[in-house]
Amino acid sequence: LQLFLGHIDGTRFSLEESEVQHCTKVLRKQLNDSVSFITGDGNLYSGIIETLSKKSVSGRYELIEQDWGKVPYSLTVAVAPTKNMDRLETFVEKAVELGITRIVPLLCDHSERKNLKIERLQKIALSATKQSLKGSLPRIDELTPFETLIQNIDPKSALIAHCEDAPKVSLVDAIKGNKGQHWVILIGPEGDFSSKEIKLAMDNGITPIHLGSSRLRTETAALAAVTMVYGEHL
Amino acid sequence: LQLFLGHIDGTRFSLEESEVQHCTKVLRKQLNDSVSFITGDGNLYSGIIETLSKKSVSGRYELIEQDWGKVPYSLTVAVAPTKNMDRLETFVEKAVELGITRIVPLLCDHSERKNLKIERLQKIALSATKQSLKGSLPRIDELTPFETLIQNIDPKSALIAHCEDAPKVSLVDAIKGNKGQHWVILIGPEGDFSSKEIKLAMDNGITPIHLGSSRLRTETAALAAVTMVYGEHL
Repeated sequence: LQLFLGHIDGTRFSLEESEVQHCTKVLRKQLNDSVSFITGDGNLYSGIIETLSKKSVSGRYELIEQDWGKVPYSLTVAVAPTKNMDRLETFVEKAVELGITRIVPLLCDHSERKNLKIERLQKIALSATKQSLKGSLPRIDELTPFETLIQNIDPKSALIAHCEDAPKVSLVDAIKGNKGQHWVILIGPEGDFSSKEIKLAMDNGITPIHLGSSRLRTETAALAAVTMVYGEHL
Repeated sequence: LQLFLGHIDGTRFSLEESEVQHCTKVLRKQLNDSVSFITGDGNLYSGIIETLSKKSVSGRYELIEQDWGKVPYSLTVAVAPTKNMDRLETFVEKAVELGITRIVPLLCDHSERKNLKIERLQKIALSATKQSLKGSLPRIDELTPFETLIQNIDPKSALIAHCEDAPKVSLVDAIKGNKGQHWVILIGPEGDFSSKEIKLAMDNGITPIHLGSSRLRTETAALAAVTMVYGEHL
């Protein structure tokens, strides 16, 4: 299935400009040909090309499937970007394949990386969304300070995976029996969350969790969290 | 923790030759210094350096911890190598971090890759073993034809994830209630197992499983399987 990113407006669709060349030059689509596209709103659409130029492809469309490839839960993962961008990019790709709603790159006390260009992550997310046949494009936030995130989440659905010695439940036990809920899972940087950050999370009523006894890299921990939520809904 | 790969013989240890330079040149270890090392047998050892040259570091040792970082199950994943080696390498690294006993690169009817150098995979596995603080080095087999694998596994502990339409249980349901067991999970190539291969597996009594409704890349499916087994033992 060749899938494009497009936009809809009333009864008309147009492809995202960056998709036009692939449509017209590589796949050599012509007037009256049909194209499958997503807009990121969750649905799968099919369009008939009615106008076509170097920079635009547009026409009329119909809805093919609502909530296409939707996972039966909502999941936000907030994770401190790794020093090595490849590792974060691998996480984004795999998380989108498995099913994720939103990724919040976190700025923490122990963050190795203090700046981030999210355009490349968004491209990877789009490509993985198409590849895994989903209609909903995950949201990727700008780099967000830890405190800002804490102030903006509902602590009842939030879990924090940290490595300090403290009573914790396993991630799997924390989400068991709460299928279909919205979860926000916080994963720390390479040097873990700071004691100050952990205290702030605890003071706000966020549930501390563990991911088992293996020492996991940041992106492995984040991906394990996504996989365990996915696995609980199999 | 700086960790080396070494060998033991009676009461003596020596470091793997490829580790010597890092020990003597980078970390500038001297006579009578101590080094932590693993041999891959599962244990953590500590050695005292008694002889030291350009090519060797050796001395006496003691056992520090048996079954160091051991996961409470045994897991073999047989997976067709991806065309893009980076993807297989990412799988090996993350699988070792989470906990895996053996990786069998599979040669299937639809395999994109018909040859494989396992030395680089073994290096990645060693590095991930050290990084994740484990004493046991996973075994990585040479590329193995599908039929050969089928003839050499116990079908009672084997699961095959294929994409054909057929009755299947989810991986999580398949392993539930069987904690600590040895599992062999077969993951197909980018174009899935062939109908012939699936039939052979079925005829041999291997359990067909699914990994949910998302369409996953080969290495994502393999990693999801490892994570779900790990998650069931949290």
